[in-house]
Amino acid sequence: MRVATARVLYADTDQMGVVNHATYLRWFEQARAEWLRRLGYTYREMEGAGVMLPIYELQVRYLKPARYDDVLELYAHLAPPTVVRLIFSYQIRRAEDGELLITGTTSHASIDRNGRPIRMPATLRTLIERGVADQGPQDGDA
Amino acid sequence: MRVATARVLYADTDQMGVVNHATYLRWFEQARAEWLRRLGYTYREMEGAGVMLPIYELQVRYLKPARYDDVLELYAHLAPPTVVRLIFSYQIRRAEDGELLITGTTSHASIDRNGRPIRMPATLRTLIERGVADQGPQDGDA
Amino acid sequence: MRVATARVLYADTDQMGVVNHATYLRWFEQARAEWLRRLGYTYREMEGAGVMLPIYELQVRYLKPARYDDVLELYAHLAPPTVVRLIFSYQIRRAEDGELLITGTTSHASIDRNGRPIRMPATLRTLIERGVADQGPQDGDA
Amino acid sequence: MRVATARVLYADTDQMGVVNHATYLRWFEQARAEWLRRLGYTYREMEGAGVMLPIYELQVRYLKPARYDDVLELYAHLAPPTVVRLIFSYQIRRAEDGELLITGTTSHASIDRNGRPIRMPATLRTLIERGVADQGPQDGDA
Repeated sequence: MRVATARVLYADTDQMGVVNHATYLRWFEQARAEWLRRLGYTYREMEGAGVMLPIYELQVRYLKPARYDDVLELYAHLAPPTVVRLIFSYQIRRAEDGELLITGTTSHASIDRNGRPIRMPATLRTLIERGVADQGPQDGDA
Repeated sequence: MRVATARVLYADTDQMGVVNHATYLRWFEQARAEWLRRLGYTYREMEGAGVMLPIYELQVRYLKPARYDDVLELYAHLAPPTVVRLIFSYQIRRAEDGELLITGTTSHASIDRNGRPIRMPATLRTLIERGVADQGPQDGDA
Repeated sequence: MRVATARVLYADTDQMGVVNHATYLRWFEQARAEWLRRLGYTYREMEGAGVMLPIYELQVRYLKPARYDDVLELYAHLAPPTVVRLIFSYQIRRAEDGELLITGTTSHASIDRNGRPIRMPATLRTLIERGVADQGPQDGDA
Repeated sequence: MRVATARVLYADTDQMGVVNHATYLRWFEQARAEWLRRLGYTYREMEGAGVMLPIYELQVRYLKPARYDDVLELYAHLAPPTVVRLIFSYQIRRAEDGELLITGTTSHASIDRNGRPIRMPATLRTLIERGVADQGPQDGDA
């Protein structure tokens, strides 16, 4: 599901003349925040309620580089969640021609403010399950 | 006073083929942390004691660019402090030939955890004043 | 003139719980790129034509901090240019209430690919002068 | 093999109070640059010779977070290379107690300045193979 767009800044590039490999993680973050926001909920509220979702595993495949001033389309897909884990998959496409540039996955564990694993609150899980049901197939709108 | 060195990473550059202008702020931060550490005190301890020093004003002059893999020498100088403010000046030089690349200033206000201005604790001020007395003239070792 | 909006990412914050002071430079860059784009021209085209505009001086005043997930309004104003210099002024406001958070200035010199100062091409200067004439007063829409 | 150390800056953290997940990629880069430098060769020279090594795949496991002002030990290990690919593995440990915080892998393809795959020059391959032979087992000094 396409959840957001972003435009590449000069600061996102490096001297290879393309986007630096670490920059894409910003857009993964933006994508999962917008995936959640469409449910009427924000990561800020979640954190305010004492639940944090740090990443414990990350995978990225760099197929083609994004370039300065490109407009990017950000896609996110959430796998069916467990009580303590969320796994998001991403696609970053060039808006101009739909070319798939980057894919990736982030795996998140729910913890409390002291860093201890906790079950996600039932209301949050219900909301997220609804979001999973509504998002369509992973490549449905690509 | 020279307080630290740093080596330019690829991630610090942009497609102009030189260090991105925002990257130098990392080295200013490193320089003031090391200025303080030489007194046997760390910014981490200060924050643990409830005192934070956010920047309220920044100035940078970019004389010549640093390049990938350059080793940089970081200089910091603290102006005589007031009870609520610290003003650091910086120089960044290329180690290879001592060439002055960047100068800058950061002005810091002491606040508590709730963001309210507070006087720096007397023990901290005494320590800092000693550091100011010991640092030598601003360009003494350049 | 308001030229763009941006939303604060988690990656933009630091452990003080607010946006890190270096992050605002991203939004200054975004603001000046959009200032130019409204004239039907892009910094990418300029660079393609062999003209680059590195920053030689930067000033920032941090009035109030932006926070995670805030929507920010980005304002940019260009001073009347000379043949070799551009000076942009910026305001960053919180969209929710219009509160002014950050002001700043970047001064740019026009150089060629070898880093030598060059006069901006006449067509570019004409375009920029039109943009300056059209932008209204500096605080006209704040 | 331990190849470098790094100290966590405030700018490396986010409002979760620990190092932001994207920051570790800086230290992976630092680690592979230092792995190469010990052979008397630098990535800067390689790029000067027209060979670039962009990342086509990245994996990171976040075991425990690094914190502000921590000193980190950076380990890198290179798998036996092919004519067009290098795969580095990393460990990031806390210097204070040797605790393993982060592991990761970056896979690199050799390309020329136009982005086309090329074989690494024979002299570079010979050098790298020597480095692989000399580095000891992957966990030999952990």
